[in-house]
Amino acid sequence: MTHALKPGDMIGVLGSGQLGRMIAMAAARLGLRTHIYCPDPGPAFDVCARHTMAAYDDEAALAAFADSVGLVSYEFENVPAGTAAFLAARCPVRPGAKALATSQDRFVEKTFLNGIGIATAPFAVVDSLADLKTAVARLGRPSILKTRRLGYDGKGQVMIRNGHDLAQAFDTVGTAPSILEGFVPFAREVSVIGARGLDGAFAAFDVCENEHEEHILARTLVPARIDADTARAAMDMAGRIAAALDYVGVLTVEMFLVEEGGAQRIVVNEIAPRVHNSGHWTIDGAVTSQFEQHVRAICGWPLGSPRRHGRIDMHNLIGAQGHDWETLLQTPGVCLHLYGKHEARAGRKMGHWTRVTPEG
Amino acid sequence: MTHALKPGDMIGVLGSGQLGRMIAMAAARLGLRTHIYCPDPGPAFDVCARHTMAAYDDEAALAAFADSVGLVSYEFENVPAGTAAFLAARCPVRPGAKALATSQDRFVEKTFLNGIGIATAPFAVVDSLADLKTAVARLGRPSILKTRRLGYDGKGQVMIRNGHDLAQAFDTVGTAPSILEGFVPFAREVSVIGARGLDGAFAAFDVCENEHEEHILARTLVPARIDADTARAAMDMAGRIAAALDYVGVLTVEMFLVEEGGAQRIVVNEIAPRVHNSGHWTIDGAVTSQFEQHVRAICGWPLGSPRRHGRIDMHNLIGAQGHDWETLLQTPGVCLHLYGKHEARAGRKMGHWTRVTPEG
Repeated sequence: MTHALKPGDMIGVLGSGQLGRMIAMAAARLGLRTHIYCPDPGPAFDVCARHTMAAYDDEAALAAFADSVGLVSYEFENVPAGTAAFLAARCPVRPGAKALATSQDRFVEKTFLNGIGIATAPFAVVDSLADLKTAVARLGRPSILKTRRLGYDGKGQVMIRNGHDLAQAFDTVGTAPSILEGFVPFAREVSVIGARGLDGAFAAFDVCENEHEEHILARTLVPARIDADTARAAMDMAGRIAAALDYVGVLTVEMFLVEEGGAQRIVVNEIAPRVHNSGHWTIDGAVTSQFEQHVRAICGWPLGSPRRHGRIDMHNLIGAQGHDWETLLQTPGVCLHLYGKHEARAGRKMGHWTRVTPEG
Repeated sequence: MTHALKPGDMIGVLGSGQLGRMIAMAAARLGLRTHIYCPDPGPAFDVCARHTMAAYDDEAALAAFADSVGLVSYEFENVPAGTAAFLAARCPVRPGAKALATSQDRFVEKTFLNGIGIATAPFAVVDSLADLKTAVARLGRPSILKTRRLGYDGKGQVMIRNGHDLAQAFDTVGTAPSILEGFVPFAREVSVIGARGLDGAFAAFDVCENEHEEHILARTLVPARIDADTARAAMDMAGRIAAALDYVGVLTVEMFLVEEGGAQRIVVNEIAPRVHNSGHWTIDGAVTSQFEQHVRAICGWPLGSPRRHGRIDMHNLIGAQGHDWETLLQTPGVCLHLYGKHEARAGRKMGHWTRVTPEG
C-alpha cells in the first residue's frame, strides 16, 4: 500500500472538537497516535498523544505539526485553503484540496454536483440586492438566501417567505457573497456517510434519516424511511461524488428526500468532507464506526464493514440536555457519549446517545 | 449519590499499560478526563488528559496526583500498600485497600475465599524446603509452587511433577514466601467479570472460557461451555466475593471448571481486582464494556447492562502476532484493537481481535 501508515504512527487532525476527539479515539483503538492542532483548546486535547494550540496561519507551528505526523486530516470543512496548501506541501492531506475547495463554497459545490449529473436545489449567485431581486423572481418564494461560505447549523442563512423584505434579507446575509436556493419541498432529510479508500474502494453506511430542531441535528434514525431503490441510488450518488473528488476518507452527503406522486427522488443539499453527526450511531451500531472507517481510509488501510447491528435511534444532547446524563445512564439499552465540554451553552452539542434494537 | 463524580471531572489511574489505556478511553466516552500515573511511559499516556511519570513512593508526585483527581483507580493488583494508603488518605481509592491486600497474596486470598465458603485448590504455606517437603507429601504431585506475591502470566511458579527435585524447585521460586497448591484436574478455565457499584448493586458479564498458551491468555469464548446452573453459581460466587470485599469497580474471578461423574463444579483460582484480558470482548460484544462498567462503578454511577450482542470469539495478539494487523483489517467481521506498543517483544500483549456472531 503506497503512502500507508503503520500502527504506532502519528496522524494529525485539524480541530479540537468532538469530531476530532472521536477520530483520535478511533485511531487509538488501532494503535495510532494523534496530534491535534487547533487555535483553541477543545475536548480532543484530552484524548490525544500530542496537541498544538496555534493559529491556522502560524507557519512555524504548522511546519512542526506536519513534521511530526504521517498525514493530516481535519474535523471541519472550513480549513483555510492556505493552511491546507502549506501542509500539503509537507505531508499528505486527506481528504485533499479538491474536496475542501468544492465543499467550502455553496456555488462551487452545486455547480460541481450538477456537472456530474446530480440534482440540487435550483440556485443563483447573489452579489447585490439587484441579483437577489432577479433570483427571487426566478426561483420564487419561499427560497433561502445563504452565504456561499462558512455557514453551519443554520448560521448565515435566511428564509425568504411571502412578504419578506428583500433589502432586509440582503442586509442580514447578503453582504457576504451568497446564493439563493429554491426551496425543496422535501418529505424527509437524509444523509449518506461513505468512505473511499486510497485504492478507490467505496463503502457506505445505510441511509440515515435526520430530524433537525432549530437547524441543529436532533435525531437520526436508521434505516431511513426510504424505498430500497432510492436508498441504493443515494448511496451510489455518494460513491460518484467521492470518485469525482478523488476523495480519501469519510464523506457525508446531506440530501432531501422528495416524494411526488408516490415516487421518491433525491436532491443533494450539501457535502461535508468529513465524519458527521448523523453517523455517530456507528460507534455502537455498526461493525466499523465512521471514525474507524475514516482512519482506515486516510491511513491507506482496507475499509471495514459498514454493517448495522440493528435498528438505530440516535439523539443529540444539545445545551441543557447534557444535564440528562444521570437519567440516561440508568435507561436500559442506551449507549451514552459525552464530549467532555465544560459549559452547556445553548445550541452546543454536549453528547449523544444511541439505542440499537436487534432486527427480527 | 455520595462521593460521585460528574462528567468533566478527572479520574486517576495507576499504571500506563493497555488496561489503563482502555479505562481512559471508556472514561473519555462518558465525558471524564483521565490522569495516568506510572513510573514508566506506556500506551495509556497517549490517550489521557494528563500524565505523571514518577515512582510509586514519590510522595510529592503522589500528593499532586491525588489533588488533581476525584478518585484513584488502578490497572494492576500489585499497587504497593504504602502507595494505596498514601493516596487513600487524600481521595477515594476504588477498589479499596481490602481488595488489594486480599488479592496481592495468594495465601491471604485463598484463606479469604475458603472463609466465605468458596472452594479453592488445597494449599499450604511454604517458607522453607522442609515446609515444601511436608506440603508435597500432603497435597501430592503434580502440585504447583507459587510465590505468594507478584506472580502473573506464569511467572514465579513451578509445576512439581513426579521425579521433580524439591530443592531445585524451592531454589527457583521458594526463596520468596510461597505456597504450594494442589493440582486441580480442570476441564476448562473460565472467568467471571462482574462489577459492584457504590450502592452495592452487582452485575456480571456471561462466563468466559479461556485458553492459555505458555501461561498467557490466548483466546476467550463466550458463552463458556458450562451448565446453566454452574454458570449461575459462578456468577453468584463473584457477587459474594465482591460483597465480602466491600468492592467498588470491576472484579475478575479466575476459576477452574471441574467435571466429575457428569457433574460440573467451580474451584476459584484467583481474584484480579481490576478489568481483565478475558473481558476485552465486551468492547465490541456487550451493551456496556468492562471498561465503561468499571468507570461507572468507581464514579458512583449506575451500572450498565452486561448483555452480549452474540457469540464471542476473542484472540490475543502476542508478540510477533501483532504483525498480523494488516491481514486482520481485511478479515470480515473482525474488530481489531492495537495497543500502540512500539516493540513486539516475545510474550508481550500487542492487541486483540474480537468476532461477534449473532445468535440464532
